Amino acid sequence: MSLKLTGIAASSGVAIAKAFVHVEPDLNIELKKVTDRDAEIERFDAALKTAKDELTVIKDKTEAEMGADKAEIFAAHLLVLSDPELVDAVKGKINDESQNAEYALNEIANMFIDMFENMDNEYMKERASDIRDVSKRVLGHLLGVEAQSLATIAEETIVIAEDLTPSDTAQLNPVFIKGFATDIGGRTSHSAIMSRSLEIPAVVGAKEVTAKIENGMTIIVDGIDGDVIINPSSDELATYEKKKADYQKQKEEWAKLVNEASVTKDGQHVELAANIGTPKDLEGVINNGAEGIGLYRTEFLYMGRDALPTEDEQFEAYKEVVERMDGKPVVIRTLDIGGDKELPYLDLPKEMNPFLGYRAVRLCLEKDDMFRTQLRALLRASSYGQLKIMFPMIATLEELREAKALLAEEKDKLTAEGVEVSDEIEVGIMVEIPSTAVAADRFAKEVDFFSIGTNDLIQYTMAADRMNERVSYLYQPYHPSILRLVDMVIKAAHKEGKWAGMCGEMAGDEIAIPLLLGLGLDEFSMSATSILPARSQLLDLSKEELATFAQEMLNLDTADEVEARVREAFVKA
Amino acid sequence: MSLKLTGIAASSGVAIAKAFVHVEPDLNIELKKVTDRDAEIERFDAALKTAKDELTVIKDKTEAEMGADKAEIFAAHLLVLSDPELVDAVKGKINDESQNAEYALNEIANMFIDMFENMDNEYMKERASDIRDVSKRVLGHLLGVEAQSLATIAEETIVIAEDLTPSDTAQLNPVFIKGFATDIGGRTSHSAIMSRSLEIPAVVGAKEVTAKIENGMTIIVDGIDGDVIINPSSDELATYEKKKADYQKQKEEWAKLVNEASVTKDGQHVELAANIGTPKDLEGVINNGAEGIGLYRTEFLYMGRDALPTEDEQFEAYKEVVERMDGKPVVIRTLDIGGDKELPYLDLPKEMNPFLGYRAVRLCLEKDDMFRTQLRALLRASSYGQLKIMFPMIATLEELREAKALLAEEKDKLTAEGVEVSDEIEVGIMVEIPSTAVAADRFAKEVDFFSIGTNDLIQYTMAADRMNERVSYLYQPYHPSILRLVDMVIKAAHKEGKWAGMCGEMAGDEIAIPLLLGLGLDEFSMSATSILPARSQLLDLSKEELATFAQEMLNLDTADEVEARVREAFVKA
Repeated sequence: MSLKLTGIAASSGVAIAKAFVHVEPDLNIELKKVTDRDAEIERFDAALKTAKDELTVIKDKTEAEMGADKAEIFAAHLLVLSDPELVDAVKGKINDESQNAEYALNEIANMFIDMFENMDNEYMKERASDIRDVSKRVLGHLLGVEAQSLATIAEETIVIAEDLTPSDTAQLNPVFIKGFATDIGGRTSHSAIMSRSLEIPAVVGAKEVTAKIENGMTIIVDGIDGDVIINPSSDELATYEKKKADYQKQKEEWAKLVNEASVTKDGQHVELAANIGTPKDLEGVINNGAEGIGLYRTEFLYMGRDALPTEDEQFEAYKEVVERMDGKPVVIRTLDIGGDKELPYLDLPKEMNPFLGYRAVRLCLEKDDMFRTQLRALLRASSYGQLKIMFPMIATLEELREAKALLAEEKDKLTAEGVEVSDEIEVGIMVEIPSTAVAADRFAKEVDFFSIGTNDLIQYTMAADRMNERVSYLYQPYHPSILRLVDMVIKAAHKEGKWAGMCGEMAGDEIAIPLLLGLGLDEFSMSATSILPARSQLLDLSKEELATFAQEMLNLDTADEVEARVREAFVKA
Repeated sequence: MSLKLTGIAASSGVAIAKAFVHVEPDLNIELKKVTDRDAEIERFDAALKTAKDELTVIKDKTEAEMGADKAEIFAAHLLVLSDPELVDAVKGKINDESQNAEYALNEIANMFIDMFENMDNEYMKERASDIRDVSKRVLGHLLGVEAQSLATIAEETIVIAEDLTPSDTAQLNPVFIKGFATDIGGRTSHSAIMSRSLEIPAVVGAKEVTAKIENGMTIIVDGIDGDVIINPSSDELATYEKKKADYQKQKEEWAKLVNEASVTKDGQHVELAANIGTPKDLEGVINNGAEGIGLYRTEFLYMGRDALPTEDEQFEAYKEVVERMDGKPVVIRTLDIGGDKELPYLDLPKEMNPFLGYRAVRLCLEKDDMFRTQLRALLRASSYGQLKIMFPMIATLEELREAKALLAEEKDKLTAEGVEVSDEIEVGIMVEIPSTAVAADRFAKEVDFFSIGTNDLIQYTMAADRMNERVSYLYQPYHPSILRLVDMVIKAAHKEGKWAGMCGEMAGDEIAIPLLLGLGLDEFSMSATSILPARSQLLDLSKEELATFAQEMLNLDTADEVEARVREAFVKA
């Protein structure tokens, strides 16, 4: 008998293979009194060192294969291992209470884990899971228990696990690991994000996969609809083989569009651009036929290190992207740090509501030395291609004017120094704060473009933290209020002859695309893997027809009604 | 030589008197090894008990004199003293390490204080200050150090302190304490809020008052402009005596308006209503001539206790207010709890961004048993006067419809049970989420009224936590985007023949009043002490003239420009 479990579709595609059930090693920790406390501390130090060495290897490998941003998590893990609050507390227990290292570490780690888990919903839980992942690694070494390695799997396999830690996913080799399914996690959990990066079909949060699946069972992971089929019948196998082939065929169809323009059925061109996090993401951007970079996040330059990046380092990172994009537009966002994205060396205050806090341009305008360095690096890179500068989290015209004034000052200085700076740099803002959307007509007079950041705009407009599961139902991209704000922003831009883009997740969403096209959006910036499906979708859409439709949608009552209307008319089953 | 220090005007009025500098007792804590550990634990228990008894007296006195909500802080302090995490940790140190109780308590308390201070900006710091306040009290008993008492002051005095703790302010007797000034604190700090409740002129955050002022110096506290004058010259004394007399005269002028209607120069009536937190606030409401209650918060019923309030308890609390308001409108807001306002017995999750979290109607719709109990109590109270029901934190029409459906179900049940329920209960919503303001035209068809909650609306619209000092500059009530949203809400209400009120701080603000009048606001709900000044201000304003002016303000660029224009035209120097 086959059995179907339903979870959350984390990464598209269909995989069929034998199951490998990944189980956590059993770490049996007993309290023992040690007599030679110095020797015990040495033993603890040795286990720490082994764990650090391993993590450094994993970090370097991940950085080389998947980019610096994916490797950041291991930098965070390494920091945990060097954290005196944890390490000294363990040594204190060994020294003062003659405890064995395993017991002492487990006690202290659990104390921190409890503290972080009880503190905060998402970000803090992530800290707790970092400590859990790292302390398990050290405990394994202390106990001499070999962790089960996913890296040695050498046949086609579907990995089944309660959850996959960053250390686990770093070991997944897409040649053999065809898919995975987990009991817990959501679309934005670490394992889900990794599955999309690796383009491995995955279903997360399927609750009972480890309970129901044994090693060697045949499993289907349907990452399109979020299903996991255990011991499929021959009919089911045939159905899913076809679904897999269809998906493959569709991917091939999409691939043919890589060098095509993005045009609608009625011959209107819009720009499909990519969001990137580091220059290493450029390969995917080029392979997927992006017409530009709509959002180049610059946080990677500042993270996982212990001092600010220099002007030259930044210049190189900007120049590389601008040059490789070969004259295509590259919108670079100035530093969007603070709140939940911490930089230890900046010593930022902890905040009660980091999403409503001291971050991005708010922080840059105060720490203007740091900001000026970034602006100079951007200005210097501008002569190597089509660079545009974008300020995040702008809420008032004063902030925009202040940021522009700093930019102008640095430009004048560079010019006086004889450094070449482009005279055609467009300067724009993220529209991600309701205040700015509502006053877009005023802002449009003082910017060259808008890029609507829907991830934040939606959470502020609905007053719902998108990372908080209890209120995530309020994260409604199709809510008429969101569409009205988007409409205001686009109209305001066009009235002043400026362009309006979007760089939130919504821009690549198949329900949103017809609406945004109808509202007149000029540029859609999305993850690189969404570009070809979007280009394909545009071929079937008429901008003129959608203009009327989209205006009607502004006057519906609910997001559900909007979604139903779009699905009915414009999305293939 | 006189000296002027400037701080934050926390409570209006002018006070002139001798200084009393309130200093913290010097608690000299040394580590001593104790031999009889059981006796030391007993000594600790005895000090805890004395502290608990004292706090219970203070709590009861505060509750009787100032209302249950003001006494809540002491319930929190009592909880700290019973917290096993703290108490057991101290006893553990005494028992395991033979430490003296003072040292053990100080160590553990500092550990918690550090932890909370480093965790979060406002709410957690408040937890830290609770622990500091409470542990000092216990340490005082352990060390036999008498805390300096403010309760025994029996001559006209201005209290000078670094800060005033809740225990301190509870002892202030307004007969003798004419004013106070502190080094630290902001307009929303505990001491500032207390000064307004007590109607004592106060300046907080004046940085150097304890450094510059000695006992017995003559001090002027100017709570109108936020100045503290030390050793004033005779000229200065005369100036401030006049300012004090003028303020007193103005208060007397205002008092004459207590039974007058609220009408503008051009004869237009608007409703000036009061915000209240408990039935005990009614006296102030009636003394200040409110025409209704625009916001009756119901959280006090749920706080400072260990189980939900019963339907009957709630019914009594609603009925009392509705009856005593004698047919005047009373808008009661359903439970707005969650996020930063915790109820331990509900076991709510900790959240990363509580202001964007699981609170108010979001929580009530899920915990519908609790919600139904409140709705039944409200329905039962409705036949005793003019009761209106208001739902907070409504973001979507689905939420409104769901809340209304629950209300209708409970009404049907009560009617079936033969309980009298008014057939004329108006049902409205707080407009405090941008989404709801932007879609106000849709909501207006399904409510009887709107009440704009500007405190939240501003913080969401500007994406700035109003409690976070680093971004509080973005809390801009006069920002054109905020005014545009207010305009949308009022127009949407009027188009459907409904009324629109406001119950945020903005409604009582002298700069905002001309703007809101011009935008057509029907009801202004504010703290009771603001009603008479507002009524006085209205006498000089023409609604018709302001209608044109307010529309112009919507098209300015910045909050500063708006404020300057209003000051120039409509606010007396």
